[in-house]
Amino acid sequence: MAKKADKPKRPKAELPRGFHDTFGEDVLERERMLSRIAEVYHMHGFDPLETPAIETVESLGKFLPDVDRPMGGVFGFQDDDESWVALRYDMTAPLARVAAQYRQDLPSPYRRYAMGPVWRNEKPGPGRFRQFFQCDADTVGTSTVIADAEICALLADALQAAGIERDDFVIRINNRKVLNGILEQAGLQGEDDEARRGVALRAIDKLDRLGEAGVSALLGEGRKDESGDFTAGANLSAGQIDLLMGFVSAGRADGAATCARLRELVGESEQGIEGVRELEMMAEFLDAQGYRAPLVVIDPSVVRGLDYYTGPVYEAELTFDIVDEKGEKRQFGSVAAGGRYDDLVMRFTGQRTPATGVSIGVDRLLAALRARGHSSENKARGPVVILALERDQMTGYQSIATELRNDGIRAEVYMGGGTNLGKQLKYSDKRHAPAAIIIGSQERESGTAQIKDLVLGTSLASEIESNEAWKAQPAQQEVERGQILATIRAIMDRQSSP
Amino acid sequence: MAKKADKPKRPKAELPRGFHDTFGEDVLERERMLSRIAEVYHMHGFDPLETPAIETVESLGKFLPDVDRPMGGVFGFQDDDESWVALRYDMTAPLARVAAQYRQDLPSPYRRYAMGPVWRNEKPGPGRFRQFFQCDADTVGTSTVIADAEICALLADALQAAGIERDDFVIRINNRKVLNGILEQAGLQGEDDEARRGVALRAIDKLDRLGEAGVSALLGEGRKDESGDFTAGANLSAGQIDLLMGFVSAGRADGAATCARLRELVGESEQGIEGVRELEMMAEFLDAQGYRAPLVVIDPSVVRGLDYYTGPVYEAELTFDIVDEKGEKRQFGSVAAGGRYDDLVMRFTGQRTPATGVSIGVDRLLAALRARGHSSENKARGPVVILALERDQMTGYQSIATELRNDGIRAEVYMGGGTNLGKQLKYSDKRHAPAAIIIGSQERESGTAQIKDLVLGTSLASEIESNEAWKAQPAQQEVERGQILATIRAIMDRQSSP
Repeated sequence: MAKKADKPKRPKAELPRGFHDTFGEDVLERERMLSRIAEVYHMHGFDPLETPAIETVESLGKFLPDVDRPMGGVFGFQDDDESWVALRYDMTAPLARVAAQYRQDLPSPYRRYAMGPVWRNEKPGPGRFRQFFQCDADTVGTSTVIADAEICALLADALQAAGIERDDFVIRINNRKVLNGILEQAGLQGEDDEARRGVALRAIDKLDRLGEAGVSALLGEGRKDESGDFTAGANLSAGQIDLLMGFVSAGRADGAATCARLRELVGESEQGIEGVRELEMMAEFLDAQGYRAPLVVIDPSVVRGLDYYTGPVYEAELTFDIVDEKGEKRQFGSVAAGGRYDDLVMRFTGQRTPATGVSIGVDRLLAALRARGHSSENKARGPVVILALERDQMTGYQSIATELRNDGIRAEVYMGGGTNLGKQLKYSDKRHAPAAIIIGSQERESGTAQIKDLVLGTSLASEIESNEAWKAQPAQQEVERGQILATIRAIMDRQSSP
Repeated sequence: MAKKADKPKRPKAELPRGFHDTFGEDVLERERMLSRIAEVYHMHGFDPLETPAIETVESLGKFLPDVDRPMGGVFGFQDDDESWVALRYDMTAPLARVAAQYRQDLPSPYRRYAMGPVWRNEKPGPGRFRQFFQCDADTVGTSTVIADAEICALLADALQAAGIERDDFVIRINNRKVLNGILEQAGLQGEDDEARRGVALRAIDKLDRLGEAGVSALLGEGRKDESGDFTAGANLSAGQIDLLMGFVSAGRADGAATCARLRELVGESEQGIEGVRELEMMAEFLDAQGYRAPLVVIDPSVVRGLDYYTGPVYEAELTFDIVDEKGEKRQFGSVAAGGRYDDLVMRFTGQRTPATGVSIGVDRLLAALRARGHSSENKARGPVVILALERDQMTGYQSIATELRNDGIRAEVYMGGGTNLGKQLKYSDKRHAPAAIIIGSQERESGTAQIKDLVLGTSLASEIESNEAWKAQPAQQEVERGQILATIRAIMDRQSSP
């Protein structure tokens, strides 16, 4: 109101940083992936659940690892009644709220899947957005690790349904109780040690990126990164660091050997022993179902950054190399992760409600498929375009479009201004149309149509000067009005055949 | 941090007011509807576009009719860099931004569809939520009203694809230019009259709800509603009110008669005459395609509340009665609306970019289908449940689930604690399982399974005391281990047949 008298300033046509638009085939490709994953989840007895984007801040809680930022990585704002609300940052916090809110009505155990965007108020980077898709499956209300194993099997099936080859990924399993056992052995289980444990956990979680030396540094006094920034460490003693690094590198050739080594490391710790036993149970169950190494392995270096995990943790990693933005070969890394979080629902109810689940990062998975050359981008095909060369014949053009659609062929009438042939063919090319149907006054009078195969037709539409010049081209044919459908069908079949 | 020492307070397991969760079959039902509508849009040459939930406030603009509220009905908040951002309140504003931002790359005309949630920071009410789904189709870059007519035809096809019978809805068309012509005739086209025009427009838009007397009052001094609240009017003169009310009630038995009446009303107004001509062109085109009365009608009472419409406006209304919360019979009303907004993209570019499009309110449409009894709720069927009566046989149970899934049957193993038969059958009922597969030690030893048809089985699972008592029931049969799949298949086929 105050500014109304000022000269109007044009808004910038741009998104806030860290957000992006998705067009055409990219949207369809993600939808296909989501529906294939959903189908697997559904077949395994998981029911869909959709919660709104907005939750109360108190209900979401603060579980993101990014502890240094004011709102802890969430987009929060005040509602009209002054209460604080925020956009969900994952699908797990809303599920915990739902499990508590509807606990009288939901079946127990409650298996649910959820897919949709989540929002992180974090620093965006290349391929790192502030809104991205997740696709989760969780089981609430059962404490048996067989439920965890089932989720791992489900994850393996879902990734394959999404188009990842069985040889191209590995599911790594670990157990927080084992880590807790090690921490106990290291004398780090006291209440006073909470902060140091957090730092140590996040350090171990960075093993992929920082290597053993980097993690060791973070477990000790701290680490200076390439840019010169210093990250404070957990200040553990040399003996403590040795124990933790021993845990991280406890992986052996097979699960049994790994478990034996872990059993040594946890010593007398009851929690540690229980964790190893749970790993064995999961491995046994998965093995019997045909999910065994190298598809599923026990890997002590998996800890996952989130504080709320209480038992098994797992992640899926793609094993093929990709070439990154800098032209360097590297592993693609993690595309899905999850674990058991037995205390999340208790926040609301005061009663322990065991739960476990996994989240697939769908956007990362799509990026991986594209990097692998499995994208459908090249297969994307636009609609058949019926050119509008006589403005008073729109009804006739539209009838042809209807005829094609009724036969299952995507079609549209050119709807722009003017009757310029070249411009309309250029438009058709931009639409990736398989073919264009041209009916000018001459064709109309003779009851025919010109049909141009736009894939075969190599000449640029822009070079065409007149209808006459264009007719001489080989990719074009004149057909009877009644033959349009059959001709288009034949052209599209030819284009589809390899 | 300040509160860390306090006794922890449990968060409430609830959503902010005006938001809701969607479960199971309701999620699937909406997905099916969206994908059927998307298929129609796609077949007509529209390409999917997905924009993020968050846009800059300046890019969204202030176009919501709710002018009295501070943020104009949007959820806005400050980003880290202090700039204001907001959740999208519709799909049109983001499209205008996209059309401006990518104008060099997009085909022109650009036909796009978009589906997803939008957010309105408005007072929630029964069936009125602050997050709801929209499903839009728009054509950007063409000024011909044939594009508007195409959108109306598309809307008719989409609603039928969504499950609304052709007799159950009407698409009403009008044109803002006609209204502008009337306003001109009434001497209300000056710059000073902007506010009064806005009030008048929103008054006419409420004809459905308030009736002619109510609208007349709002065009005059104002109106006191049932609760005693007074809404200020546009303070028009009696002559002006007569002209506007004459416009609103200009609808005649057929389109030609309505257009003739409108032509009288707009008199010499050039804009008005152009508007009538556009209505005629649209009607002619739609008529030739088979979209004619009573499916599509010209209705001068349609104005649509949004300020940005510049030409044709249209809406789809369901014509059947429903019984509302108060047990009263009423019309369901509008489920889709749209129109031409030739100036929205210009906000960004300074160049006029004509555009037109429609938005389907998917949640309202679903509510209508449910009110009509077309819901699939009753048909929803859960997974086959394999009971887990021996905790050390989970692998065997899981193998049966896999066998069923491989045959396309949704299945799950009971994953809760304990081995109580009654509890597990109760769970299966809660899951709406078509059948339960029961293998206890006896069945395991004899290589058999008990299969219970849970639809046929009328006894409450809770009444069953023992495995023996249960076996006597007719809905249960004992089969060989190898016959499980065939038996389940037969039960499900029987349940599906009418």
